[in-house]
Amino acid sequence: MSASFSSIKRVLIGEPFPTHDEIHERLDKLRGLAIFASDPISSNAYATEAIMSVLILLGSGALAMTLPIAMGIMGLVLLVIFSYIQTILHYPDGGGAYTVAKDNLGTMPSLFAASALLIDYILTVSVSVSAGIRAITSAFPALFDHRVLLAVLAIIILTWINLRGVRESGTIFAVPTYAFVVGVLLTVAWGLVRYFGLFGTAQLVPAVHDVAPEGPITNFLYIWLILRAFAAGCTALTGIEAISNGVQAFKPPESKNAAKTMVAMGIIAMSLFVGITFVATHLNLLPSEEESVLSQLTREVSGTGFLYYWVQFFTMMILILAANTGYQDFPRLSSFLAKDRFMPRWMQNRGDRLVYNGGIITLAIIASIIVIAFQADEIAMLPLYALGVMLSFSLSQAGMVHLMSKVGKLKPGETAYTGVTTIHYETSWRWKMLLNGVGSVVTAVVLIVLIITKFGEGAWLVVIAIPMLVYLLRTIRDHYTHVSEALSTHNLKMEALQDIADVIVIPIGDVHRGTLRALQYAKRITSNVRAVYVSTSDTARERVERRWNRFPAITGDVSLICMDYEYRDVLTPLVDYIEKVNHEEYPNQIVTVVIPEFVPQNLAAQLLHNQTANLLRARLRGHEDIVVVDVPYHI
Amino acid sequence: MSASFSSIKRVLIGEPFPTHDEIHERLDKLRGLAIFASDPISSNAYATEAIMSVLILLGSGALAMTLPIAMGIMGLVLLVIFSYIQTILHYPDGGGAYTVAKDNLGTMPSLFAASALLIDYILTVSVSVSAGIRAITSAFPALFDHRVLLAVLAIIILTWINLRGVRESGTIFAVPTYAFVVGVLLTVAWGLVRYFGLFGTAQLVPAVHDVAPEGPITNFLYIWLILRAFAAGCTALTGIEAISNGVQAFKPPESKNAAKTMVAMGIIAMSLFVGITFVATHLNLLPSEEESVLSQLTREVSGTGFLYYWVQFFTMMILILAANTGYQDFPRLSSFLAKDRFMPRWMQNRGDRLVYNGGIITLAIIASIIVIAFQADEIAMLPLYALGVMLSFSLSQAGMVHLMSKVGKLKPGETAYTGVTTIHYETSWRWKMLLNGVGSVVTAVVLIVLIITKFGEGAWLVVIAIPMLVYLLRTIRDHYTHVSEALSTHNLKMEALQDIADVIVIPIGDVHRGTLRALQYAKRITSNVRAVYVSTSDTARERVERRWNRFPAITGDVSLICMDYEYRDVLTPLVDYIEKVNHEEYPNQIVTVVIPEFVPQNLAAQLLHNQTANLLRARLRGHEDIVVVDVPYHI
Repeated sequence: MSASFSSIKRVLIGEPFPTHDEIHERLDKLRGLAIFASDPISSNAYATEAIMSVLILLGSGALAMTLPIAMGIMGLVLLVIFSYIQTILHYPDGGGAYTVAKDNLGTMPSLFAASALLIDYILTVSVSVSAGIRAITSAFPALFDHRVLLAVLAIIILTWINLRGVRESGTIFAVPTYAFVVGVLLTVAWGLVRYFGLFGTAQLVPAVHDVAPEGPITNFLYIWLILRAFAAGCTALTGIEAISNGVQAFKPPESKNAAKTMVAMGIIAMSLFVGITFVATHLNLLPSEEESVLSQLTREVSGTGFLYYWVQFFTMMILILAANTGYQDFPRLSSFLAKDRFMPRWMQNRGDRLVYNGGIITLAIIASIIVIAFQADEIAMLPLYALGVMLSFSLSQAGMVHLMSKVGKLKPGETAYTGVTTIHYETSWRWKMLLNGVGSVVTAVVLIVLIITKFGEGAWLVVIAIPMLVYLLRTIRDHYTHVSEALSTHNLKMEALQDIADVIVIPIGDVHRGTLRALQYAKRITSNVRAVYVSTSDTARERVERRWNRFPAITGDVSLICMDYEYRDVLTPLVDYIEKVNHEEYPNQIVTVVIPEFVPQNLAAQLLHNQTANLLRARLRGHEDIVVVDVPYHI
Repeated sequence: MSASFSSIKRVLIGEPFPTHDEIHERLDKLRGLAIFASDPISSNAYATEAIMSVLILLGSGALAMTLPIAMGIMGLVLLVIFSYIQTILHYPDGGGAYTVAKDNLGTMPSLFAASALLIDYILTVSVSVSAGIRAITSAFPALFDHRVLLAVLAIIILTWINLRGVRESGTIFAVPTYAFVVGVLLTVAWGLVRYFGLFGTAQLVPAVHDVAPEGPITNFLYIWLILRAFAAGCTALTGIEAISNGVQAFKPPESKNAAKTMVAMGIIAMSLFVGITFVATHLNLLPSEEESVLSQLTREVSGTGFLYYWVQFFTMMILILAANTGYQDFPRLSSFLAKDRFMPRWMQNRGDRLVYNGGIITLAIIASIIVIAFQADEIAMLPLYALGVMLSFSLSQAGMVHLMSKVGKLKPGETAYTGVTTIHYETSWRWKMLLNGVGSVVTAVVLIVLIITKFGEGAWLVVIAIPMLVYLLRTIRDHYTHVSEALSTHNLKMEALQDIADVIVIPIGDVHRGTLRALQYAKRITSNVRAVYVSTSDTARERVERRWNRFPAITGDVSLICMDYEYRDVLTPLVDYIEKVNHEEYPNQIVTVVIPEFVPQNLAAQLLHNQTANLLRARLRGHEDIVVVDVPYHI
């Protein structure tokens, strides 16, 4: 059975990699970009539209604000990217916001940053997969009733690919990511060419609309909607921190490669974002329920030809693949937390293919639960999203400000160890500190705007969930501390180790080959063996005694203790007897209980045999001074 | 934890009864009728309507056939009841169709009878509960969306009441059963009085209808629909055999009390059936989707006053309680089968309150699955119902024919033992044999009619399920036979019992109080103790070796075997090493493995600790010659 399990596993997951092969599993920049940047790149499929959908409430004239807002968001993105490049270079072992906050701000801020990110990574998976499935069900409405099943299926497939190892998933995900980028860039470029009528192309004529605002616009409403539009566009920021957690997934020199990949990601994502926004607003496109802005744009620019279907198909693909950012960072961040004992220790274990299996599967389960709870409706999940990431940005940059102040105290040529990383003298620490400080304050303001504008729509859930998760992480750490103190050999006195009582108790239900084998085993350990039989009827007791006396060679020097019991639950008198032996006859010593166990050929057959042995073992497990010996009997 | 579990159990189920109290838990006739007859009595809520709903397809004129068909069914019921009274008197230990068939027809027919009944009892629960919940959701349509949940909830409540013991459930169920009987009898009696205008009452005037048949009526169609109407009315027969399985639940003299209860049940059920049919047909009531015939009848006779609501309320109650017939007989029949080793042995165990817990819970689970699968739609389940019971009737009566032929061979005063029961000389064996023979043939014909008329609507499921269940029962018996041969001490040679190898292997993951305690335990058993450590990194190995050398008093004479392993799955090298010791060093001997086990305070904390010990134990379980010793370490 175990052999067949391991061969099934081999087919699904692949041959195990030896630990020293880890270096071959590292990512080059091309795969690294595909695997970590799918979330920020995919945001361009809807970020512009998100801004326009809010502004249209102020009337079509207000759509002119789209480009300035997008530029503002781009500025924010550049600030954050700059900050994370600093993080990558200063913390080459990875860990992002959690590590930076831990090293500079203390435990609580680091746990808040970690919890915020963990929740956001889970939402990344739920939201992306649901959005991708919506794209599919829009094309094939017959599938709409099965959307939850399809979304869970997509999560299972993503989980499976990720369990096969980071390099393999990087290869699989590279094609759709780059295909999307190329498709959209071509569309934008061709759109610019045609908008300006370059190279003698037929110039595109912007549409003319006059959509009136839905009601009178007060100053307050105006500011409120501009803020909401900005908050909506901030979805473009999610996932840009992903590379910072995964520095160690890159080929050496790790931090340099990671930093370069981050720059490439920033350039690509911002070109797409500003490009789409520019063309869409200059063509006077209107956000619509029926067709996405990106789809309208592609159709306007190139007609419904090859490019159109290319962009549509890879938009759908990258929406699903965006989930992969969650798959990369949730397990890594969990392993960092597990290393510091804030998460179960098995989160640190790497599986056959050198990925953090525990984290991948935990993520898949929680994300599936959320998808089921929200019925794969990503619109309902969106208000929960992007808050966590903004909190982590703010904390991470505040941490970098503190780190830079430490760097500023160094003299030329001097180095120092912070407890986590080594810092060197830098001439440019002042302006880095300033930029990080600005970044931290701006992201904190955006966070507040996000909370206020989205609170009623569901963001309150995240506002509650983050401190609850922090509490859970602390509780886990406290438990581990308590256990390690109890297990510690520090101050161990030899007398504290208990004596072993010279007695063995064997509960028996019948006399057969299995019991005789167990008796023989027990007799090898001690001469004081006691077989205990609980009888619920006289005929049964007589039968056991008769059979007992048939094997004097084995049972001769064993005492058979028959107890009459007037209820049917035979475990209670057995446990009572064992406790009595333990507490009265051999206090403070270890008493051994030998359980003869019949092991049937297959799992189904287990149902057919009295579960008494299992139940007895479970009850005895609570007793500190009882050692249980299983003597199996196979057929 | 164990203490709190047992106090919760005590609150829910009640104080345990000692085995010798069993006699106090027996039922008097009043409770016995309530507990076993709820199914046949409840049938009257819909049996007449079931016949009329088919006949109306032939036009309202054909409704005149309702009474003759009902009389035919009543004749069949009387035959079956007569036959079962014979069974009860001849098989006072109970067991009904299964026991009779086993004793007279052989194993295969008895298994067919048992399987048919088991399936019917499960359906009794699913159908009754769903019908009861439909009555509730008809009154409160807002609850319709929650019908599956409500039905499962009803099953949970029934399960709970039944787990509290047979006498207590008899008391609880008596009130609604008798309230229903009294309510309907009053309605019928008052209906007769008013129909005939006795005692100067305002005479009821039958309605006049002329519903035309839906199409031309051929001879074939006519016969087909009459047969279908008869088959539909046969639902009145379900559950009438229930008492025969439960003879031992009655106070002594068991068979006499059971037989008297059966007679009372027959009289009550038939009075209700014929009474309702007579009044309903003479008032020219029409079956309708909107209102049940029983409801129309009550309203016509007494108006929508107190009696009307009384009958409506207790109809709903008894529809749900009819499930209790299944709860009584499924566990009893299962325990008979388990005694003969056709079912898992634990089906024989009686719980704290002397009921067959295993059977009750198994029934609840399967019935819930069916309710969920059919979305609590009892109309869809009905075609599956009543087939099984008819097969068991036919087999049971065929068995009684055979038994009577044996009785006929006895001389006056002579007795004989059939292997199951003792038979005496009887003068009346000839006509009993005749009646049973007629009963067997008639029920076989009805069975064929049922299969033909309901096959396409779902009865095929039962036609397939019965032989499959028979196969399962036989497989279970074969397994037990195989096991008992293997465990048998017959021909046991002392040399066959294996030697115990003088070696103990202790897998360790670290050196702490828990491991030291396990080492100390192992050293008491043998001087050849080997601690095995699988190292996945050099630093970890050095750390373990350093700590190992700190405790020479314990580790001094133990060999520490460190194995470097280049994958992460440390179980494989551990198991490989243990297998090597077992097969190469000590072939054909029993090798002992001591596992130091850390036992955390609570279940949640278990998730936080490496599951290595559990997985290792599971893998070693498959090895015949390895004894596992758990040395627990509590905090």
